[in-house]
Amino acid sequence: MSAPDPELLSLNTATVRQQWNLADIIAGCTRHNIRGISPWRDQVDQLGVKEAARRIRDAGLTVTGLCRGGMFPAPDSQLRKAAFDDNRRAVDEALTLEAKCLVLVVGGLPKQPDGKIVSRDLAGAREMVRDGIGELLDYARSGGMPLAIEPLHPMYAADRACVNTMRQANDLCDELVGPRKGEGLGIAVDVYHVWWDPELKQQIERAAEASPSRLLAFHLCDWLVPTTDLLLGRGMMGDGVIDIPLIRSWMEACDYHGMHEVEIFSANNWWKRDPDEVLLTCRRRHQLAC
Amino acid sequence: MSAPDPELLSLNTATVRQQWNLADIIAGCTRHNIRGISPWRDQVDQLGVKEAARRIRDAGLTVTGLCRGGMFPAPDSQLRKAAFDDNRRAVDEALTLEAKCLVLVVGGLPKQPDGKIVSRDLAGAREMVRDGIGELLDYARSGGMPLAIEPLHPMYAADRACVNTMRQANDLCDELVGPRKGEGLGIAVDVYHVWWDPELKQQIERAAEASPSRLLAFHLCDWLVPTTDLLLGRGMMGDGVIDIPLIRSWMEACDYHGMHEVEIFSANNWWKRDPDEVLLTCRRRHQLAC
Repeated sequence: MSAPDPELLSLNTATVRQQWNLADIIAGCTRHNIRGISPWRDQVDQLGVKEAARRIRDAGLTVTGLCRGGMFPAPDSQLRKAAFDDNRRAVDEALTLEAKCLVLVVGGLPKQPDGKIVSRDLAGAREMVRDGIGELLDYARSGGMPLAIEPLHPMYAADRACVNTMRQANDLCDELVGPRKGEGLGIAVDVYHVWWDPELKQQIERAAEASPSRLLAFHLCDWLVPTTDLLLGRGMMGDGVIDIPLIRSWMEACDYHGMHEVEIFSANNWWKRDPDEVLLTCRRRHQLAC
Repeated sequence: MSAPDPELLSLNTATVRQQWNLADIIAGCTRHNIRGISPWRDQVDQLGVKEAARRIRDAGLTVTGLCRGGMFPAPDSQLRKAAFDDNRRAVDEALTLEAKCLVLVVGGLPKQPDGKIVSRDLAGAREMVRDGIGELLDYARSGGMPLAIEPLHPMYAADRACVNTMRQANDLCDELVGPRKGEGLGIAVDVYHVWWDPELKQQIERAAEASPSRLLAFHLCDWLVPTTDLLLGRGMMGDGVIDIPLIRSWMEACDYHGMHEVEIFSANNWWKRDPDEVLLTCRRRHQLAC
């Protein structure tokens, strides 16, 4: 594998969210010649979605995704309705930002508003996810915003996402859009969540066989050994055990030529560093370890 | 679901390993009328395998498994040979203990003796696992000791086991023994590792369709939300989000009528409690939450 095109680097704003607000991050991308960005909605809200869109456009950045919609399962119809309304706003914001897709973290077991899980019915949660995506899909398609299901690592099945493999995401696309179809619904492939999956290559190929391709986004970071925090213990590319160049080669063999979005939640390391150093490191590691 | 037969409760010695040695645990099982035990090799070694076997026999306990063999991937042939020799000793010990099976935690990426991972080649590690089990299988079969592949949660793929789903374990059995065959090689189903898997029911059924059945062991604990330690943060049955009765119903529908082995690694809770209280709680929760 040759090193990736440096122009393909995109920054998920979570990577420096503890140090910088969105305006700082946009300026940082310009300073470090990073050509893509994927913002989180709370940071967009803080700046205002129109102002955020204006600054991103002025900086010439590609918005590789908006993080995030989803969180479909809920214990009652009122909370499901609230989730749906919020997801429609997320679609609207993604359209204003001219994002390539709205990333869906689909939610785990049904929770009360205080976060307490109130059911062990995982199959039922998965049905709520299917129905929730199906309902949102009509709205998103009417605006022309692709939805990207992000399969999350199985360790998040209870509390964040009960879609945990590429196979499941492909099955959902089959069911909601049609076999080998990808109109308006696809997948965000995050190496952190899927690197362990023995079916990864095969399911990437399956996603790419759809028309249009379901491969909507490609997220990078690394799996550290040991991992000391399930949520905030991600590593910089090259510091862990994921064979990122191999997975990239699978994506490229399937005609994915989109950007490579670096998304690192790292409470004890990268969130404590000078964010300019973090961005420099992202650029360097994108060339050396991806 | 009706409550399980209390006679089916078995205690994996890891559950109270911080408080008691093996002799204490055997005595504890007798005191609490727990009819099965699954010891770890380091605790067996400490007492001596013959003495351990004698005490377990005298207490009338069924040995639901010996923990553990495996750890096949290694960076060079000398270390692979050392792993093989150790695995043969594990088979011998399991035979002395009259265990129902030797549980295999197959290992992750190849490591140096100091624990440092030296390769990102996950597919290669999986080949080493296949070859290692194949080699050990000849030895184990000649003695009549079934090997139980334990698929571990994907969060352990790098450092503990790169067999992470029931499908993978079934595929290995197909390859090494034959489709729908189970002679000498099967699977240990631990709810903690597999509860999230959308294919769980189907793969349990596939394991049971083999002749003899590949369902060699059934391990219980619970997945806590939040989970604060990847290794030592397991919960007592009923304290987490796993629908254990549902999974038990799938096992029983597939004619699994073996014991239910409680295996809880819990540095911050159950390992700090009075071990008699832990055993009482295991008995109660086995009736109430399994």
